Amino acid sequence: MTDPIIKLAVEEDFALGDITSDNIFRAGDRCKAVFVAKEDMIVCGGEAAKQVFEYVDPRIKFAQLAPEGAAVKKGARIAAVEGPTLGVLRGERAALNFMQRMSAIASVARELSAIARKYGVMLTDTRKSQPGMRKFDKYAVRTGGARNHRMSLADGVLIKDNHIAAAGGITAAVKKIKNKIGHTSKIEVETKNLKEAAEALKAGADIIMLDNMRPAEIIKAKKLISGKAVIEVSGGVNKNNLEEYCKTGVDVVSMGALTHSVPAKDISMLVIKQKINKGDKNL
Amino acid sequence: MTDPIIKLAVEEDFALGDITSDNIFRAGDRCKAVFVAKEDMIVCGGEAAKQVFEYVDPRIKFAQLAPEGAAVKKGARIAAVEGPTLGVLRGERAALNFMQRMSAIASVARELSAIARKYGVMLTDTRKSQPGMRKFDKYAVRTGGARNHRMSLADGVLIKDNHIAAAGGITAAVKKIKNKIGHTSKIEVETKNLKEAAEALKAGADIIMLDNMRPAEIIKAKKLISGKAVIEVSGGVNKNNLEEYCKTGVDVVSMGALTHSVPAKDISMLVIKQKINKGDKNL
Amino acid sequence: MTDPIIKLAVEEDFALGDITSDNIFRAGDRCKAVFVAKEDMIVCGGEAAKQVFEYVDPRIKFAQLAPEGAAVKKGARIAAVEGPTLGVLRGERAALNFMQRMSAIASVARELSAIARKYGVMLTDTRKSQPGMRKFDKYAVRTGGARNHRMSLADGVLIKDNHIAAAGGITAAVKKIKNKIGHTSKIEVETKNLKEAAEALKAGADIIMLDNMRPAEIIKAKKLISGKAVIEVSGGVNKNNLEEYCKTGVDVVSMGALTHSVPAKDISMLVIKQKINKGDKNL
Amino acid sequence: MTDPIIKLAVEEDFALGDITSDNIFRAGDRCKAVFVAKEDMIVCGGEAAKQVFEYVDPRIKFAQLAPEGAAVKKGARIAAVEGPTLGVLRGERAALNFMQRMSAIASVARELSAIARKYGVMLTDTRKSQPGMRKFDKYAVRTGGARNHRMSLADGVLIKDNHIAAAGGITAAVKKIKNKIGHTSKIEVETKNLKEAAEALKAGADIIMLDNMRPAEIIKAKKLISGKAVIEVSGGVNKNNLEEYCKTGVDVVSMGALTHSVPAKDISMLVIKQKINKGDKNL
Amino acid sequence: MTDPIIKLAVEEDFALGDITSDNIFRAGDRCKAVFVAKEDMIVCGGEAAKQVFEYVDPRIKFAQLAPEGAAVKKGARIAAVEGPTLGVLRGERAALNFMQRMSAIASVARELSAIARKYGVMLTDTRKSQPGMRKFDKYAVRTGGARNHRMSLADGVLIKDNHIAAAGGITAAVKKIKNKIGHTSKIEVETKNLKEAAEALKAGADIIMLDNMRPAEIIKAKKLISGKAVIEVSGGVNKNNLEEYCKTGVDVVSMGALTHSVPAKDISMLVIKQKINKGDKNL
Amino acid sequence: MTDPIIKLAVEEDFALGDITSDNIFRAGDRCKAVFVAKEDMIVCGGEAAKQVFEYVDPRIKFAQLAPEGAAVKKGARIAAVEGPTLGVLRGERAALNFMQRMSAIASVARELSAIARKYGVMLTDTRKSQPGMRKFDKYAVRTGGARNHRMSLADGVLIKDNHIAAAGGITAAVKKIKNKIGHTSKIEVETKNLKEAAEALKAGADIIMLDNMRPAEIIKAKKLISGKAVIEVSGGVNKNNLEEYCKTGVDVVSMGALTHSVPAKDISMLVIKQKINKGDKNL
Repeated sequence: MTDPIIKLAVEEDFALGDITSDNIFRAGDRCKAVFVAKEDMIVCGGEAAKQVFEYVDPRIKFAQLAPEGAAVKKGARIAAVEGPTLGVLRGERAALNFMQRMSAIASVARELSAIARKYGVMLTDTRKSQPGMRKFDKYAVRTGGARNHRMSLADGVLIKDNHIAAAGGITAAVKKIKNKIGHTSKIEVETKNLKEAAEALKAGADIIMLDNMRPAEIIKAKKLISGKAVIEVSGGVNKNNLEEYCKTGVDVVSMGALTHSVPAKDISMLVIKQKINKGDKNL
Repeated sequence: MTDPIIKLAVEEDFALGDITSDNIFRAGDRCKAVFVAKEDMIVCGGEAAKQVFEYVDPRIKFAQLAPEGAAVKKGARIAAVEGPTLGVLRGERAALNFMQRMSAIASVARELSAIARKYGVMLTDTRKSQPGMRKFDKYAVRTGGARNHRMSLADGVLIKDNHIAAAGGITAAVKKIKNKIGHTSKIEVETKNLKEAAEALKAGADIIMLDNMRPAEIIKAKKLISGKAVIEVSGGVNKNNLEEYCKTGVDVVSMGALTHSVPAKDISMLVIKQKINKGDKNL
Repeated sequence: MTDPIIKLAVEEDFALGDITSDNIFRAGDRCKAVFVAKEDMIVCGGEAAKQVFEYVDPRIKFAQLAPEGAAVKKGARIAAVEGPTLGVLRGERAALNFMQRMSAIASVARELSAIARKYGVMLTDTRKSQPGMRKFDKYAVRTGGARNHRMSLADGVLIKDNHIAAAGGITAAVKKIKNKIGHTSKIEVETKNLKEAAEALKAGADIIMLDNMRPAEIIKAKKLISGKAVIEVSGGVNKNNLEEYCKTGVDVVSMGALTHSVPAKDISMLVIKQKINKGDKNL
Repeated sequence: MTDPIIKLAVEEDFALGDITSDNIFRAGDRCKAVFVAKEDMIVCGGEAAKQVFEYVDPRIKFAQLAPEGAAVKKGARIAAVEGPTLGVLRGERAALNFMQRMSAIASVARELSAIARKYGVMLTDTRKSQPGMRKFDKYAVRTGGARNHRMSLADGVLIKDNHIAAAGGITAAVKKIKNKIGHTSKIEVETKNLKEAAEALKAGADIIMLDNMRPAEIIKAKKLISGKAVIEVSGGVNKNNLEEYCKTGVDVVSMGALTHSVPAKDISMLVIKQKINKGDKNL
Repeated sequence: MTDPIIKLAVEEDFALGDITSDNIFRAGDRCKAVFVAKEDMIVCGGEAAKQVFEYVDPRIKFAQLAPEGAAVKKGARIAAVEGPTLGVLRGERAALNFMQRMSAIASVARELSAIARKYGVMLTDTRKSQPGMRKFDKYAVRTGGARNHRMSLADGVLIKDNHIAAAGGITAAVKKIKNKIGHTSKIEVETKNLKEAAEALKAGADIIMLDNMRPAEIIKAKKLISGKAVIEVSGGVNKNNLEEYCKTGVDVVSMGALTHSVPAKDISMLVIKQKINKGDKNL
Repeated sequence: MTDPIIKLAVEEDFALGDITSDNIFRAGDRCKAVFVAKEDMIVCGGEAAKQVFEYVDPRIKFAQLAPEGAAVKKGARIAAVEGPTLGVLRGERAALNFMQRMSAIASVARELSAIARKYGVMLTDTRKSQPGMRKFDKYAVRTGGARNHRMSLADGVLIKDNHIAAAGGITAAVKKIKNKIGHTSKIEVETKNLKEAAEALKAGADIIMLDNMRPAEIIKAKKLISGKAVIEVSGGVNKNNLEEYCKTGVDVVSMGALTHSVPAKDISMLVIKQKINKGDKNL
């Protein structure tokens, strides 16, 4: 079961052929290559790279040398790949594009979740992932040690202002939802101020999101809620002020930047062995 | 013709429904919403957002208020969307994910291509785009004012060290390719030093890439090539040192960071009008 | 956004043409038809039928006459369809296959959820839906008035015996999961007896499923859990004994038969008007 | 070549991951499980289940223990599956959903075709299969011993009242079709009474369907047609009155209930061996 | 419902953009173009061309000026297209590729079926259509006036030598099939000589194919079969010897060349009006 | 990575089963078959045939006996296939349809490119390939020894009259494009006469296409351009007059007939060994 984004990544690069390699290599040529970290990082994306190469050519063998989630130093060999040269080169760029992004997310998640953990706070992502990468972006977040907010619109209720307006208030919105959803779903309400938070609490929300509130106000909200609902802080949190928000003692901080603004980690694929098949006919 | 990454982005968020909105809104409810820039930016991604909403529900009308490529200030309304509330909310996150990324790329491309242009240098991207986003990432690069390197492995020959080794040297590799490709393709050779650049030139390369060379060496290469091939510099170029590389007077600088490391621009969708249809049956 | 099961249903019937209608009707012929209930039922599947016809030919207009969830008598007109005859006939069977199944599910869900409601019990479905029909089967369950258990493996933790064995016991399994999942997910544990239920409760399960237990044992489990976790009963419940299980006072009863064993409701499509276009060329 | 409904069934359950197993098991864990009949049944769906597991993970081995079409008793082991635990659990529900439905169809088809065979009557299905399941539903019908009516609109002409009205009568409709179709197709005409049957016969229909006629009228029609066309009875036939219709001596009885109203057979997957891989990294 | 081959044809030409038009035209530019026959032909493929343009951009209007199946002279305007210039140019080549092939097939089918008809012989195609074009190739055959042999392996039995060998002879093979197929399917047997034809006849074949037999032998076979089965001649028939085979008085001649060896008809698309939208922003 | 046209070709033939083989063979039956040339040809399409069989059933082994591009005589064995009989027969027709077409293209390309080569002229194809077959048609052209013009609208600029009109003349069009495209793309201008050719040259076109010009005019154009741009001749060139055009000394001749009008080569698949598995259950 190859993920659709894997297929898309390979096809957009190779749908009509590879006019360089197709004219140099033959079907029987084989090579071995390694993926090398060009800077320190938390490794992630091996499984995606494996799927890339298997999709390109099932005869290619991909072996992960540094496991998912491992902290490696610049120069480390992350993975090795071996098989028909044409396939290895066709998959190279797509595999790297996955690994560079996913290792970057895992690295940031590792660093920031460690900060949050010191304060007993859970750090989560949001749905601000790259198009088509939801599953892989969220996996990278987990690999780094942070956790996942809801995966999609289908799992987890999140009542926002538009829902509230349409339903006729927070109380009415929560009631309406409670009358319809099953017992496995929680209800979260996005609130902009203490008054809304108080209403959400009274309405029976399982999770109360404090949206774009400053630490001082958050502390007041915490007192108000006093353990009767999970408190999530969101909006305006970044690497620099994360600690300040964590100090408020809330349960959860969610951060879009974990997936939408990470600079790629530098990884290269190096061919370390080539076996040219003289007699073989190029296909 | 909806692009596959558009479909994927919508489906990963909505494949099994939206348990919040589906339980609050009815099929006949309608709303109008606007997309607002929360910081200064070059606008890009309107066409992608339009495709998102059309895919979710063809009855949704999307109007772009600030054209693609426009420089807008914080607070500007970029686009407006109007139609069935359920559809507007289903498409919101996916549309924003496209616009936030693409506007970010266009903004960086605008800034850096202006620097390059001062020195008569063409700034291009690479194939280091996000998986599945090749077409949209490269469009954002163009929208910002930078240009595109090859779109895929099928258009444009780029001979690298593995090709050279397999073919038995740069001269042999170029010759082999020349004997096979059509007249619409150019041949680019990646070179690591002056010696290789000289050989590529003699072999008849149309474009010589100077890979990971420092400015001093690049200047020597330029003298050597003296206008007989297009010179492209790649590797290790970033926002901070771009100007330094441009001063060498090469023809082209290509930069992976244009697409793989841009922090998202902040954009929000605000519902500004809601029309609740009391009598209508929720589907 | 046409659901994939809609496309599949149309394509499996029509991929290579319709050798009857294609040889009788012309592209310009038009007709109007109605969908008639041949027995009493709760109406469901109108949205699916609409998608079928829109997929076959976007010019076909589908109007639902009896809303989703309405209780109609034998003879009632549920919906009307109007447009090119070729398209109407191409979509007929697929549309009926959706409506007949979904109305059947909604009808059973209506009847049984009413029984459960009398005892304050929530009736839910399971993941025993027909292949490809998950979203539509679960929608029909909701339309009938019952509720949905988790939609897929991605939303909602359900720890079963295999997980327990692998993790080294219920306590270890719950702990392991708690350390990894986000704050929006609940943890359910499947238990076979009181001892397991007690352990699950102590481990901090949000929901305790009593699997294949008889009413007498369920009552004991209820006492034991005494409101500290949601109690779900599953296994061996059917239409005949549902009331007996509800009397135990548990929170939830889940029933696979809601989706895997419903006899189709009888619905027919009748063409009530035909306009033959003499001059028009058959495509 | 994995059938599209197999892919859909797996993807709707697993598109965004399995938050239970993904957090308990590691990539290297392996298990063996068996599929056990919880009631007597005709086995069917092994090939579908095999495709499910191969699609989830090609390393999973599926072995069918009771062949397709075999009559097994409650408690029988129908099939065994062995491979990576994560894959086995991901495929479990989808595989069961196929087998439970297909064994149910085969069981009913076995029972009813035996009744029909006593009277020399061929029992066939219709196109009233579940959406997306046409190929599998019809295969289950054959496995049970009944036969298939046409697979799709493309194979086999079936002239109904709308066609007749548009063409200007049965005679005109049959003539029109005869002038266009190839020599491998048969022409069937749906008739509501003796008069129509007589006209269809005269027009040269290969098969005459007696739609919703009672046995007495069918006997008259049979006399009228007297072997010059195949006679098919359809509409209103069910398990209880099948024998009565068969006694009329017609050639074929077709029954939608064979595919649209079968209660699922009860089958369970039991893990009988687990091998936990301590050192292995969870992917 | 856009046919998959339509999508593929558009996507293979346009998946990554159109670097000529995208850099010249703006989203608001519009044009009108006509499709002109550059030689005499039977028109076919209008519906395919329409689907191409609708898939590229639903705002494009396609009007067929010469109906499907019409005989037009060099210079005739076959169709007109009007809409956004970018879309019209993106669809041009794909639309022409369909029309040029399909008009060629229809033209040959028209000519050869007329010859066959003189002798009361039905001319049919085979399954030797171009990959992915089965439905369109066969439609073109019908448009020209010839008829279709079976559409796919699923409709129509054709017993060949391999089947015969495996089943243990023609008689056994026919019997085996008769015991399994439904009443809507015919049985055809491929025979290499009179002896096989005689056996097929006795076994109860509905159609007997005389494969690669010369006219003299065909005449003998015809005498032998004497109206008790449909006779189809196949193999070695071409435009030059078709009449000779028809004179034998068989029922059907099938010819692979109708679809696998037709030289394309020459058709051009000419832009006859352009409206350049100065103010509009190029997307 | 199976090409979409491979999937489509298999599915259009087999989507709903194979009612002949499915009723004769069992899952365990195996056979070996060979592909035999029934006339002299350049072999091409082995890779496509391999993909067909692998897609139908990965257990089938396909071995190419005459390599791609080899000139074989009538009677030569081109390839062998071995595996489950059901799979081999399901893939037969699709595999042959690819090989017959691709060998035909390669054969014509071989013959005509040899003529062109005598005059130092490069012979190329166009985008007039069969729908969905772009990649395979162009591969066959290369296998025959001719070369490829651009693969799609995304690689290679080709400015035609509509572009020229919209941009305001050749000079303006070329300038506009030069200001936008990257350094890896060439600019080709289609010209109808010497005046346009002269303007294109002056504007800086890399390639000048002389469209539908006669040899006398071409010779004048050649003098005019005198090596400052690549000259391509297109329109009206065929097998009979190719030499005449080549004698003009232009650089390139492009010919649509290489892909749109080749009569299929005759190839058959012969089963040479069958192993019937008596005990095995037919699936």
